[in-house]
Amino acid sequence: MPDMPSTKPPSGTRDFLPADVRRREYVIGVVRGVYERYGFEPLETPAFENIETLLGKYGEEGNKLIFKILKRGQHESTGEADLALRYDLTVPLARVIAQHQSALPKFFKRYQIQPVWRADRPARGRFREFYQCDIDAIGSTSPLVEVEQLAALCDVLAGLGFDDFVVRLNHRAALTGLLETAGVAPERHADALVALDKLDKIGRDGVAADLTARGIDAAVADACLRVFVQETTGEATLARLSGLLHAHPAGREAVSNLERIVGLASGTTAASRIRVDPSLARGLSYYTGAILEVAVPDLSGSLGGGGRYDNLIGMFLGRDVPACGFSLGLERIIVVMTERNMFPEAVSRGVSDILVTVWDEPSQADALHVASQLRRSGLRVEVYPEADKLGKQFKYASSCGTPLVAIRGDDERAAGQVAIKDLRSGQQTAVSIGEAAGFVTERLGLKT
Amino acid sequence: MPDMPSTKPPSGTRDFLPADVRRREYVIGVVRGVYERYGFEPLETPAFENIETLLGKYGEEGNKLIFKILKRGQHESTGEADLALRYDLTVPLARVIAQHQSALPKFFKRYQIQPVWRADRPARGRFREFYQCDIDAIGSTSPLVEVEQLAALCDVLAGLGFDDFVVRLNHRAALTGLLETAGVAPERHADALVALDKLDKIGRDGVAADLTARGIDAAVADACLRVFVQETTGEATLARLSGLLHAHPAGREAVSNLERIVGLASGTTAASRIRVDPSLARGLSYYTGAILEVAVPDLSGSLGGGGRYDNLIGMFLGRDVPACGFSLGLERIIVVMTERNMFPEAVSRGVSDILVTVWDEPSQADALHVASQLRRSGLRVEVYPEADKLGKQFKYASSCGTPLVAIRGDDERAAGQVAIKDLRSGQQTAVSIGEAAGFVTERLGLKT
Repeated sequence: MPDMPSTKPPSGTRDFLPADVRRREYVIGVVRGVYERYGFEPLETPAFENIETLLGKYGEEGNKLIFKILKRGQHESTGEADLALRYDLTVPLARVIAQHQSALPKFFKRYQIQPVWRADRPARGRFREFYQCDIDAIGSTSPLVEVEQLAALCDVLAGLGFDDFVVRLNHRAALTGLLETAGVAPERHADALVALDKLDKIGRDGVAADLTARGIDAAVADACLRVFVQETTGEATLARLSGLLHAHPAGREAVSNLERIVGLASGTTAASRIRVDPSLARGLSYYTGAILEVAVPDLSGSLGGGGRYDNLIGMFLGRDVPACGFSLGLERIIVVMTERNMFPEAVSRGVSDILVTVWDEPSQADALHVASQLRRSGLRVEVYPEADKLGKQFKYASSCGTPLVAIRGDDERAAGQVAIKDLRSGQQTAVSIGEAAGFVTERLGLKT
Repeated sequence: MPDMPSTKPPSGTRDFLPADVRRREYVIGVVRGVYERYGFEPLETPAFENIETLLGKYGEEGNKLIFKILKRGQHESTGEADLALRYDLTVPLARVIAQHQSALPKFFKRYQIQPVWRADRPARGRFREFYQCDIDAIGSTSPLVEVEQLAALCDVLAGLGFDDFVVRLNHRAALTGLLETAGVAPERHADALVALDKLDKIGRDGVAADLTARGIDAAVADACLRVFVQETTGEATLARLSGLLHAHPAGREAVSNLERIVGLASGTTAASRIRVDPSLARGLSYYTGAILEVAVPDLSGSLGGGGRYDNLIGMFLGRDVPACGFSLGLERIIVVMTERNMFPEAVSRGVSDILVTVWDEPSQADALHVASQLRRSGLRVEVYPEADKLGKQFKYASSCGTPLVAIRGDDERAAGQVAIKDLRSGQQTAVSIGEAAGFVTERLGLKT
């Protein structure tokens, strides 16, 4: 045997066989349905962007994870890259808003469900190619925007069958206010947030150690932890934040924005899901207002998150345009749904409805005729491609999970009939060609 | 204003705004529906492959058009590429068959609708990122495979409303036989096919000149043209081919394979579409049997094509596995459908069904409540995000093409009603909250 190339997909990527694709399409269908009911419209952008569109938008760590594409032709030998695979769907959206603003409505609400690529170290639920399911609303600073998105997010997860998720909610300006109140110097804010973001993983003492390691005075670190560690829930947290920030105008405004969001959301499906959490930070640097993250108990990390970013579009447009959105991670949703066995049974039954058997070579034309009759009613019909023993054809159908087979010998053909055999029960029924599609539809319990 | 980065998508790629996405989804929906009725199952593969998977599969010209991805991290400075964006869906399929063979049925029929990337010079209907809609059947050499695919292809195009397409059909071994019979030396076959492939564009004399320029003797060139230039149609062509190849066993077998395909197809929707055309060559080197291409009069180039390739999978697996498939180009279909105005009106009406207006800030919660009632019935509902003059909100809805607005002032709220205004007629009707969704559904002629 000659030296064969590897047939594995590249590290961190996967092939999706039919059952995988059907599960993915099911989730995407539910997500898209909710997004559309909330008045979001679909947008799609190219897989790659000009490299300068992406660089400098995701921070230093993000820059390193961008897949870069070599210039073509004679420039290839220079090793220079001019394009890069998109890292998320938000920066491409900001570019689209700047490019197409005259063609877009004043309040543009778009959803986008497409893959993104990051050269991250692969791990459980973390891939180098993965789908994001984003919604964003452009053009308004109203808290109603956040509330609609919170409700859509909760409707998506409830629609998929999740009943134990929580949405953590915070505000970037409240975060800044709390850090300032605790005495953290502005140039240490980013460091402090990185440390505080690990509270779930390394605990209070771990964070305290990390804060001092990052050059933050022990007394300040302690003040930080007193502020951020969550000891209250619901309105009590908002009241506590309000108290902590009473002397900080921007922080006070942030708390009143959170109060308005929580108040408006109380009449929506998001009401019971929201937890105001002063320690929520979110990594990306472009957020400016409310931020949120959604999680379930059995997955470390989040199912998705987002927030308000009122300045990003300005980087492309030259004037700021308010914007707010979130992203759900398709892969993480599927990981949890698979482990919890949450997919409806019908999703997996993606195979053909019926296999038309072939008696012998001359009967192939007749088999095609039978198949064509059944397909006209929308049935999914496979024709066995070769003349073969009937037993082998039945076995093939069974191995594919195809429930029915159609058989047409000389007798059936003479009588204008076809025999339909149910491989689950073994029962065989002769029906007229004209009634075959109806019979199959009824037998399989499909909608007519 | 600071120096703004370009906001155009990269050369040869496009942003798809909502109306574009809806047209694309409509076509993909029709394609997918037909493919599924023919028993094909969905497959998806990563956007990029290990570079050695792709190199050497598409000929020298193809190699040059592959987008290559730089190694990450410290290797980036070497300028070395280890990954490449997929160039088509066929080579990834061959890799998948080799990798997952034990998990796949004996006859694996898959469809795959995903983008591919080629660093081609952009032109009308030719992009650097474009979607292919492929079906392939693995595991059988039966001509029934070709016939089912021909019928599926014709059902797709008929389903989209095309009534003037033709499918050109030829066979690689017949081509080889004809070239040998005309006296073309084996090492000149590829050259001769490249020249003959231009018959449509540069005519008989142009091809003759091209053939001699490629080192083919003028007498042989003349013999080629006599053989390939089409002067017959239908069965007469098959008979002529049969005569020309009577002394060439492999060529004769190819003609009898074509006869079997045409015969079997005569009972299918493909019957009236097939034109046996001895000059059809198809560029890619991996074809081994029947080849086909589909075209409409007003588009130079094809809407799609394909054929049998019984050896490609062997390059990954070490043993040959028969395979046959074709690819439809989504972009070209959309170009023609747009020019011919073939999209159903409903496809463009992708906006919200109704806009819920906001009276003043305190009424936002009530607007969310109304929206939530309407969404429960599956309606697509936008809520105006800000308190604003009603007239401005109506104007906004009109500009978005949203046909209805919901208004709830103090009177309506007190009466448990909502006023629905039809912006097309100006008519306004007060209905109870509970009946609002039904009223809107009926007014818009939507299915319940």
